[in-house]
Amino acid sequence: MPGSQPGTIVTDPNATETRIQVLSYDADHFSEHEVDNVDKLAPFLESDRMIWVDIDGLRDESTIRKVGEMFNLHGLVQEDIVNVHQRAKMEEYDDHLFIVARMVMLEDHLQTEQISLIVGDNFVITFQERPGDCFDPVRRRLREKIGIIRERGPDYLMYALLDAIIDGYFPVLESYGDQLNDIEDQLLSRPTSSVIARIHRMRSEFFILRKAIWPHREMVNALLRESTPRIRPETRIYLRDCYDHSVQLIDLTETSREIASDLRDFNLSQVSMRQNDIMKVLTVTATIFIPLNFVAALYGMNFDTKVSRWNMPELEWAYGYPFSLTLMLGTAISLLIFFWYRGWLGRDPTWQRVPQRRFLRRIRRHRQEREISDRS
Amino acid sequence: MPGSQPGTIVTDPNATETRIQVLSYDADHFSEHEVDNVDKLAPFLESDRMIWVDIDGLRDESTIRKVGEMFNLHGLVQEDIVNVHQRAKMEEYDDHLFIVARMVMLEDHLQTEQISLIVGDNFVITFQERPGDCFDPVRRRLREKIGIIRERGPDYLMYALLDAIIDGYFPVLESYGDQLNDIEDQLLSRPTSSVIARIHRMRSEFFILRKAIWPHREMVNALLRESTPRIRPETRIYLRDCYDHSVQLIDLTETSREIASDLRDFNLSQVSMRQNDIMKVLTVTATIFIPLNFVAALYGMNFDTKVSRWNMPELEWAYGYPFSLTLMLGTAISLLIFFWYRGWLGRDPTWQRVPQRRFLRRIRRHRQEREISDRS
Amino acid sequence: MPGSQPGTIVTDPNATETRIQVLSYDADHFSEHEVDNVDKLAPFLESDRMIWVDIDGLRDESTIRKVGEMFNLHGLVQEDIVNVHQRAKMEEYDDHLFIVARMVMLEDHLQTEQISLIVGDNFVITFQERPGDCFDPVRRRLREKIGIIRERGPDYLMYALLDAIIDGYFPVLESYGDQLNDIEDQLLSRPTSSVIARIHRMRSEFFILRKAIWPHREMVNALLRESTPRIRPETRIYLRDCYDHSVQLIDLTETSREIASDLRDFNLSQVSMRQNDIMKVLTVTATIFIPLNFVAALYGMNFDTKVSRWNMPELEWAYGYPFSLTLMLGTAISLLIFFWYRGWLGRDPTWQRVPQRRFLRRIRRHRQEREISDRS
Amino acid sequence: MPGSQPGTIVTDPNATETRIQVLSYDADHFSEHEVDNVDKLAPFLESDRMIWVDIDGLRDESTIRKVGEMFNLHGLVQEDIVNVHQRAKMEEYDDHLFIVARMVMLEDHLQTEQISLIVGDNFVITFQERPGDCFDPVRRRLREKIGIIRERGPDYLMYALLDAIIDGYFPVLESYGDQLNDIEDQLLSRPTSSVIARIHRMRSEFFILRKAIWPHREMVNALLRESTPRIRPETRIYLRDCYDHSVQLIDLTETSREIASDLRDFNLSQVSMRQNDIMKVLTVTATIFIPLNFVAALYGMNFDTKVSRWNMPELEWAYGYPFSLTLMLGTAISLLIFFWYRGWLGRDPTWQRVPQRRFLRRIRRHRQEREISDRS
Amino acid sequence: MPGSQPGTIVTDPNATETRIQVLSYDADHFSEHEVDNVDKLAPFLESDRMIWVDIDGLRDESTIRKVGEMFNLHGLVQEDIVNVHQRAKMEEYDDHLFIVARMVMLEDHLQTEQISLIVGDNFVITFQERPGDCFDPVRRRLREKIGIIRERGPDYLMYALLDAIIDGYFPVLESYGDQLNDIEDQLLSRPTSSVIARIHRMRSEFFILRKAIWPHREMVNALLRESTPRIRPETRIYLRDCYDHSVQLIDLTETSREIASDLRDFNLSQVSMRQNDIMKVLTVTATIFIPLNFVAALYGMNFDTKVSRWNMPELEWAYGYPFSLTLMLGTAISLLIFFWYRGWLGRDPTWQRVPQRRFLRRIRRHRQEREISDRS
Repeated sequence: MPGSQPGTIVTDPNATETRIQVLSYDADHFSEHEVDNVDKLAPFLESDRMIWVDIDGLRDESTIRKVGEMFNLHGLVQEDIVNVHQRAKMEEYDDHLFIVARMVMLEDHLQTEQISLIVGDNFVITFQERPGDCFDPVRRRLREKIGIIRERGPDYLMYALLDAIIDGYFPVLESYGDQLNDIEDQLLSRPTSSVIARIHRMRSEFFILRKAIWPHREMVNALLRESTPRIRPETRIYLRDCYDHSVQLIDLTETSREIASDLRDFNLSQVSMRQNDIMKVLTVTATIFIPLNFVAALYGMNFDTKVSRWNMPELEWAYGYPFSLTLMLGTAISLLIFFWYRGWLGRDPTWQRVPQRRFLRRIRRHRQEREISDRS
Repeated sequence: MPGSQPGTIVTDPNATETRIQVLSYDADHFSEHEVDNVDKLAPFLESDRMIWVDIDGLRDESTIRKVGEMFNLHGLVQEDIVNVHQRAKMEEYDDHLFIVARMVMLEDHLQTEQISLIVGDNFVITFQERPGDCFDPVRRRLREKIGIIRERGPDYLMYALLDAIIDGYFPVLESYGDQLNDIEDQLLSRPTSSVIARIHRMRSEFFILRKAIWPHREMVNALLRESTPRIRPETRIYLRDCYDHSVQLIDLTETSREIASDLRDFNLSQVSMRQNDIMKVLTVTATIFIPLNFVAALYGMNFDTKVSRWNMPELEWAYGYPFSLTLMLGTAISLLIFFWYRGWLGRDPTWQRVPQRRFLRRIRRHRQEREISDRS
Repeated sequence: MPGSQPGTIVTDPNATETRIQVLSYDADHFSEHEVDNVDKLAPFLESDRMIWVDIDGLRDESTIRKVGEMFNLHGLVQEDIVNVHQRAKMEEYDDHLFIVARMVMLEDHLQTEQISLIVGDNFVITFQERPGDCFDPVRRRLREKIGIIRERGPDYLMYALLDAIIDGYFPVLESYGDQLNDIEDQLLSRPTSSVIARIHRMRSEFFILRKAIWPHREMVNALLRESTPRIRPETRIYLRDCYDHSVQLIDLTETSREIASDLRDFNLSQVSMRQNDIMKVLTVTATIFIPLNFVAALYGMNFDTKVSRWNMPELEWAYGYPFSLTLMLGTAISLLIFFWYRGWLGRDPTWQRVPQRRFLRRIRRHRQEREISDRS
Repeated sequence: MPGSQPGTIVTDPNATETRIQVLSYDADHFSEHEVDNVDKLAPFLESDRMIWVDIDGLRDESTIRKVGEMFNLHGLVQEDIVNVHQRAKMEEYDDHLFIVARMVMLEDHLQTEQISLIVGDNFVITFQERPGDCFDPVRRRLREKIGIIRERGPDYLMYALLDAIIDGYFPVLESYGDQLNDIEDQLLSRPTSSVIARIHRMRSEFFILRKAIWPHREMVNALLRESTPRIRPETRIYLRDCYDHSVQLIDLTETSREIASDLRDFNLSQVSMRQNDIMKVLTVTATIFIPLNFVAALYGMNFDTKVSRWNMPELEWAYGYPFSLTLMLGTAISLLIFFWYRGWLGRDPTWQRVPQRRFLRRIRRHRQEREISDRS
Repeated sequence: MPGSQPGTIVTDPNATETRIQVLSYDADHFSEHEVDNVDKLAPFLESDRMIWVDIDGLRDESTIRKVGEMFNLHGLVQEDIVNVHQRAKMEEYDDHLFIVARMVMLEDHLQTEQISLIVGDNFVITFQERPGDCFDPVRRRLREKIGIIRERGPDYLMYALLDAIIDGYFPVLESYGDQLNDIEDQLLSRPTSSVIARIHRMRSEFFILRKAIWPHREMVNALLRESTPRIRPETRIYLRDCYDHSVQLIDLTETSREIASDLRDFNLSQVSMRQNDIMKVLTVTATIFIPLNFVAALYGMNFDTKVSRWNMPELEWAYGYPFSLTLMLGTAISLLIFFWYRGWLGRDPTWQRVPQRRFLRRIRRHRQEREISDRS
């Protein structure tokens, strides 16, 4: 609400119920608990192990407020956590880093979910809007001690989570790439109007994607460049990788958008070409038959040939009918020659058949190449 | 007037009458007065409480001049206050900060109003063009001592006011978002020409919105970055939040503009597709019937069959009429096959019916998602 | 001429004849003279008053050369003064600042005029292409000692002149705004082709305006930022105002251009919609009547019913004529139902009548708002 | 060739034959020689006069190599000299500055030529692709001792040459401006399809121009800003002028491109308007006559009126023919009223006649203004 | 896979089999070996010669891991080598520089291949996706000791390889330039619809090219500017050349894209012009013949002239038939005059014949010029 007190926590009554999971670990130990009350987090905090508190669902205001008190979070941070429309950003506070990222999922349609990360001295807290995330591989790496993740501090865990979020965009973009290829195939074989609505819908979703991706680059860059002591130098090298990925994602999104625009233009060109073809058929038919029709109608007039010899003497010629047929044939042939000369009889649309198949094959090979070169 | 003396105060005779309200407070006290004369402000100034002077309506030149003298405002500041077409900006003077912001309202059509803020040692003055503003929640927070607002200085009050102004853009953008969704629904079910004018009007209003919003980012950033001692460090953290909001607003406005453009293009594509359909119906009908008509007209000619056996002997064949009907039927069927082969009989427009409903449902779900993700 | 000696003064023989006016003043005195010879400027220079030398018309090469010698102007400066196609710029020389600005006038069509300003220790020289300028209010302020202008140095006079030039763009942009509103009204009531040429012409003039305005911002910014001792700190505050105005002008020009583009697109959409309507009328009429015509032509054939009972027995049925009429009516009604189902009979164009009036009123109110918010 | 040794000199066998001219001068002396062998340059080098070696035609590899050895040019410099597709650039080497610029000529079509300049302690070498350049005024200034050119060092000569090259773009752009005006005239009087190809060709040439001009700004700026001791401070003031010109050129090119785009859009709008007119004529004619034709065909049917009184009794009415004529007339008039009401009879195209002339005159005046304001 | 351990090497099972080639050299010696096992590289490393290890095909994970251990490569570097969708980039590690570049080939369709370079103290390692590259000239220069390449260190070899990769883009762009010229020729002689698909395909490939080229500029710039001791000053001068080439490539790609867009627009304009022509033919024919047909149909009506003297007395006039013919002729001539006046009979399309040839010749000459000026 405009003008309301900063730090006001307005939870969405439709939000998912809150669920809290705690992972506590050091190089040698690992435990995983689900707690039903924030107060039960206290014993974990007191141990000297690293802990990761993962909070799903933002319906319960009191939980967030209690977590806020326990970990000393600024009022604005608490507000931003429940207000799930933040751009990706990084803010440094005395006691912790506050990071906002945005996860995407593509099931039937594109969905985004805000992930808030709090990085403290020996803990990482993550807030998610809904259950279901892309962190399972990270949990497995912790559980099964894969790689160095259990030996590093909270900055490395934060990197691992950010990396999982950012890498989660790639399958989504690949799926869009496949759809664009489908549409291209369809357009090459036969332009249909349903494609317009489909491209329109994709472009709407690209707006959402773009709005979600862009700020990540800035955010990762801030983590890289700012001299916060919370990010250790050996972690920075990994964040550089993360940064490269976010740049790649922006590249891919922009390219996809441009390809979608191109396909739309291509479709419109084809529609316009097709209208041309339709008009040509109409024009050729009408222009040839209208004069013929006129001749026929002429000799269908009922002037009385008996009255004078000026009244339609042709009707009584011995070869009147053959004469009129010849007249019509001559007219038709002249017009056909005229149209042929203009090039309106050239079967332009045939290109849509045989050569197109060949072209299609070629394009497909080229598309496979592109798919490979686009998958990252 | 070009070339006139700087600091000239030219009030608009159509402006609203001036009304002055004073809120005087400290952590323990609060009073609220309406004064009819600038001179009556003097006692408030002498007390050591914080005061907020809110001046509505800029018709009365002498009031502004007197306020200017009392608070020692530069001539250019006084000129900018009545000249209500400033871009949002921040200027530092010896005795005060001068801030211009722009409030929006959407009733029937989009309206904007310039708000000038003067931030001094222990006072904040606001000048508004018209009565009615978005500051009521701030007044309530002062009156009922909600949060820390009564304990902080003029910089925090300024932040609270700026925050209220900037957050006031969100409902406006949401309303435009709803309109865009309406238009999309309408376009998907049935393109109508009235949509063109509606989109055109929205785009005009987006120009106004964009012109109003963009400079706020710069202005808030200047407040954040410049090392003015008037903004205390603990307030800066709140201004950072304000800055994030203004960036979000710019994002939303740009996205809305792009969606509006997209809808316009989508509409035009559909119109062009529809014209294609219309042309196809005309072409198919005309192309089939014109040759038939020709055959009918041919046998309507009046050549005298008596004169020679070359003159329309068909007319006297026993099966002349069935022959001609067969000829016509054959022509029609050949042409139908030709058109079917070309794909012009494929009922393209049917997509607008059944599958579209399904698509519509899908899009609507997706839109709800977007609404949520766009509401901030 | 490419390759010619730098500092070459090539006056345009069509330029206006040169006219020199001197204003000499200090806080207490003021005199105003027209001199016919540059040499007569010497006595003014020797006094310790401020002088403003205003030179109109650039036809006379010797005058410019003599002024150049008297005030010690660099050869390139003299070249730039007569070469009236400079972009607005600021250059610092040892003895003076050299400033180029561009004035606009809109009479029948858009005209621009280069103003060169030389700011020295106690003098300001202005060179104008033609008589007639926007400096009269400044002259009046000097003559009648309005404000502080007579007490300040050459930098303040320069500011006053620049301010007059820049503020002179506002009425021009307002006039274009009015024209755009006119065009919008016209388009809403009835799209006409003359609008295309009018928008095209306006866009051409916007190119000129934009080219003229943009460099002013840079130039004023250079005056503000560069640490030249010729601009006193108390004048800088006024230049900041000037800078704000030039930014506003750029904003307004860009917005006007975008509105013009939008109107062009709007017009084209309406034309395309209208073509759709025209096509629909043609298609509906032709498609309904062509089959009817065919039936009529069919029964106009002259097959001899006497020869066999297969030859057009309908002609001799008792109810043959009613049968054929029923056939036609049935065909027509089926087709009308088909078209109604397709929505081609829906009177789309009616929107142009009643609701449009209402919309027009709404837009007009909104436009008044915009006019106000655009006037600065 | 990709991967070949850097510094490889691959001369174009089609290049012009090499021709060497030496100008040797100081304030008091001047001599001008054509030499047929690089070795003959040695005596000039040993004198303490300034020399300008002008080499035309790049066919002879050995010449370039010998010059390279004599003046100690880096291998990459030699490569760049013969590889005539460099962007304008400036590179500093120990013994000399290496500058690449691009000259334009417009004869029948646009041509560009790379000019390489080597600026040493007391020499300037220029390499040109072909004979014929824009340096004659510079040669004349040297020969006839016009201005200060003979008194200054190699940096001033370099400036004079660069200035000649950059100023050589102005006549080309003016010529394009004239062509654009021609096209506009033509479009206003009567849109023709040949204009499309002409605008298309101009736009292709603008791509070349733009590619040629843009890097010059950067290059001159590098000369201005970089602290190379080879450019004396008193020359920098002239380079600033050069920089202004290159900015003006970029402005002009961009504006010309935008005007060309605008003209293309204008033309397309007019074509679309015209198609509208054509369609209207077709629709009005067809829609009026098709029903009339139907009535005529109706009464051309041959139902036997003798068989029953239901069979076309109209044919035997006393006023059957006048009745049918009245029916047709009534139909025609109703349709005309309908079309008039729709506004399809309004003679839209007349605007192309009388008012257009008036508009044309106005535009022409405005164009003259623009021509003046564009010529620089 | 999102969330997987950083440094994970996931080789593509479809990748080419790994092949290792070692070139070992110093100023006096040169040897070239193919090894089948990474371990066999050890003896080369121990010698004090420079070595270049060229690894083709990335199928074999263990090879890459072993090379990583032997040369001490960071896990992320190993990941990036097999993950062949990196943007061109440069990263500095303690023991080596890591550079990613992208090679292009155009056979039938555009293909790209990632080249990873590791530059160490006395070695360069290159990883390629597939056999076949553009490094043969570099190998020959090493083998035959052409130029200074055998006397310089690994930085110079890296430069030579980068230069070969970047210069490899030029032939590709030239080939696209030729195709664009072909298309232009085709469009000028006769617009065909197949061109639309061809331009569309080229534009898709330009997206790939652009995505590949742009990051090279940044990467080379990083090599130039960053103060890494691995790049010796004498090599930097060569990298500057490389940088110039990458800027030229970007220029060329952007220009090609714009030309492709222009051609598409040009084609659409021509299609629209042609549709205009088609419509004109239809309109002129239909509008002339429809009234004639009406007159003929009129006098084909069967009103019984015997019943009254009002029933079609024309039929029995002595000159009824000549009268009707005159009526038709008059109508036709009036309509022809009307169309001629409107300019619809003007043989617009003729421009496509004679003048176009002339224009074509001119354009071709101009194109040759452009080809020359575009080849670099």
